[in-house]
Amino acid sequence: MDDRVREHAEVLVDWSARVEAGDQVVMDVAEGAHDLAVAVAAELGKRDATLLTTYGSSEVGRAFLRAGDADREFAHSEPELAMLEAADVYLRVGGGRNTTALADVDGDRRQKARTATTATREARMDSDWVSTVHPTRSLAQQAGMAHEEYQDFVYDAVLRDWESLADEMANMKDVLDAGSEVRIEAERTDLTMSIEDRTAVNSAASVAYDSHNLPSGEVFTAPHATEGEVFFDVPMTIDARRVKDVSLTFEDGEVVDFAAEQGEEAIENVLDTDEGARRLGELGIGMNRGIDRFTDSILFDEKMGDTVHLALGRAYDACLPEGESGNDSAVHVDMITDVSENSRLLVDGEVVQRNGTFRWEEGFESA
Amino acid sequence: MDDRVREHAEVLVDWSARVEAGDQVVMDVAEGAHDLAVAVAAELGKRDATLLTTYGSSEVGRAFLRAGDADREFAHSEPELAMLEAADVYLRVGGGRNTTALADVDGDRRQKARTATTATREARMDSDWVSTVHPTRSLAQQAGMAHEEYQDFVYDAVLRDWESLADEMANMKDVLDAGSEVRIEAERTDLTMSIEDRTAVNSAASVAYDSHNLPSGEVFTAPHATEGEVFFDVPMTIDARRVKDVSLTFEDGEVVDFAAEQGEEAIENVLDTDEGARRLGELGIGMNRGIDRFTDSILFDEKMGDTVHLALGRAYDACLPEGESGNDSAVHVDMITDVSENSRLLVDGEVVQRNGTFRWEEGFESA
Repeated sequence: MDDRVREHAEVLVDWSARVEAGDQVVMDVAEGAHDLAVAVAAELGKRDATLLTTYGSSEVGRAFLRAGDADREFAHSEPELAMLEAADVYLRVGGGRNTTALADVDGDRRQKARTATTATREARMDSDWVSTVHPTRSLAQQAGMAHEEYQDFVYDAVLRDWESLADEMANMKDVLDAGSEVRIEAERTDLTMSIEDRTAVNSAASVAYDSHNLPSGEVFTAPHATEGEVFFDVPMTIDARRVKDVSLTFEDGEVVDFAAEQGEEAIENVLDTDEGARRLGELGIGMNRGIDRFTDSILFDEKMGDTVHLALGRAYDACLPEGESGNDSAVHVDMITDVSENSRLLVDGEVVQRNGTFRWEEGFESA
Repeated sequence: MDDRVREHAEVLVDWSARVEAGDQVVMDVAEGAHDLAVAVAAELGKRDATLLTTYGSSEVGRAFLRAGDADREFAHSEPELAMLEAADVYLRVGGGRNTTALADVDGDRRQKARTATTATREARMDSDWVSTVHPTRSLAQQAGMAHEEYQDFVYDAVLRDWESLADEMANMKDVLDAGSEVRIEAERTDLTMSIEDRTAVNSAASVAYDSHNLPSGEVFTAPHATEGEVFFDVPMTIDARRVKDVSLTFEDGEVVDFAAEQGEEAIENVLDTDEGARRLGELGIGMNRGIDRFTDSILFDEKMGDTVHLALGRAYDACLPEGESGNDSAVHVDMITDVSENSRLLVDGEVVQRNGTFRWEEGFESA
């Protein structure tokens, strides 16, 4: 076994999920993630946790979802709910054999099944859950990379010194927590937004930081009152459609104009979902320098160093004052912009990042 | 997909497990059984059951079992117990990638883990559980067969007209239920045993018949007061040791002498386990003519038509009068003899089977 698989398992179990002796662990294993699952099982055994392994197969899911009449009703699984309610830790070990395995499952039916399984989804979220991926050939293909090349990419992103990255991200969180206004200047971009009374999340890939993805490596908050223009130069996939070079214009916090070089219709559909879809739900600063390229996977792309992302739609409660709810929407669509060149990120008029270099880093130039 | 995979799934869901709308189903999928699992998921969806899929991976199990110090303690998984208690139906879809995947797990540790998980095992037995296998290359190899050849073998055994086989087996059950004494005559064999007050089980591969294996196809009971000699000419594996041509001599129900051409020590170990290991726990009549050869797998071998098997050790409660317990032992070791030639099976002095042909079949000669 590749040593990195073992190290990935250790990071997942210790840093991310903080597994302790006696913890009741459920691990969900995707079709192609067997090797990582074996490594995780060994780590859990060493730590005297218990283990139940579920099979997160898209193809089994597809067969189950497609079966039956058009008017078939769905219900959650009681054994699954009981299982999740008894779990302390839930580990999702992703990495299938085909990222489009569910392509021929009717969208309405998928939505129906999703609605019927709200209880199990909520029970999962109530556990200390962490989601990661094993670098399968299918994910390499989606990233447009060779398999070995993609393995290197994933392990560079996952096998960080998380303790020290968390410390560095704490600087960014402190700046955002203390600040009132963020301004982003970049190519075709001059955007201001308020972060008054908002709390930033130091998403350091650990349940101890309220962060549930491995890798992570971003600091995010919930902006409002957005004004100005922003240009997203990182290509992405929205609803299975390729989207490129998107510009949005905001007035009074709402999108009033938009354009895209490619996939403009997909953006239009997002904006038309509901009222909240026209407002921002998230401002995120990517700080994981182990991620050095875009791979068309939001798990990695939005964490990449020298990037900033904004999401249209739903805001996370963790960023809001206790009891207050932020922007609400059925969607949360992240869009990313590269800030490695000709860019400045300002908080209350002070430059925090210029051309990808933060104020606390060597080589930072304030003016 | 091979049509036979779909048919296998249908037999499992309808005939064996009797799944109905609203049933809460848990399916355990071995590493190599993905295709059958997909087919079963489709059948369950059609029947409006719910589905939770667990991953029955020997390699994940091995990693978990081997981890940690020598004095590591084991405990059952609470999520697994809760899951099983909420399940109506439990389907085990076997078929791994290596039948010896657990070869380097220490026996004492395995026993310790087994003891610690009694609660989950009992919860599983309390559901309508059925165990079957997908014909993997690993199982083909254990059977000494080519993969396609083994697929044909498995589907011939599984895709029977179970309704009509169950009817035929009912004849055998009636004879045994009415009878007091069974006598087996064959090469180097003349054995009598009492079946007074015993009830035979028509093991027709369905929970409706208290039968939990697919394939099945045997009628079995719990004999006692065994006298005489028996010779088992079918090779088998006991505790990973090859055993061949075993003879046992019984007096007053107990083994008083034994010999084996190969693996005599394995037989000796079995007999020395405890007091009950020297007495019979089962007499079974194989009646599945879809099974036409021995494949070193007890799931198939003991069901083969024209065979009789006897087990040393534990008897099944289903064969005993209510409240009475039969032969008790930590072991239950089946041994098989071919009765297709030069043999007679008699109940109360009347011939029921001669040279593999039953009384109710064409070509039967009573004398």
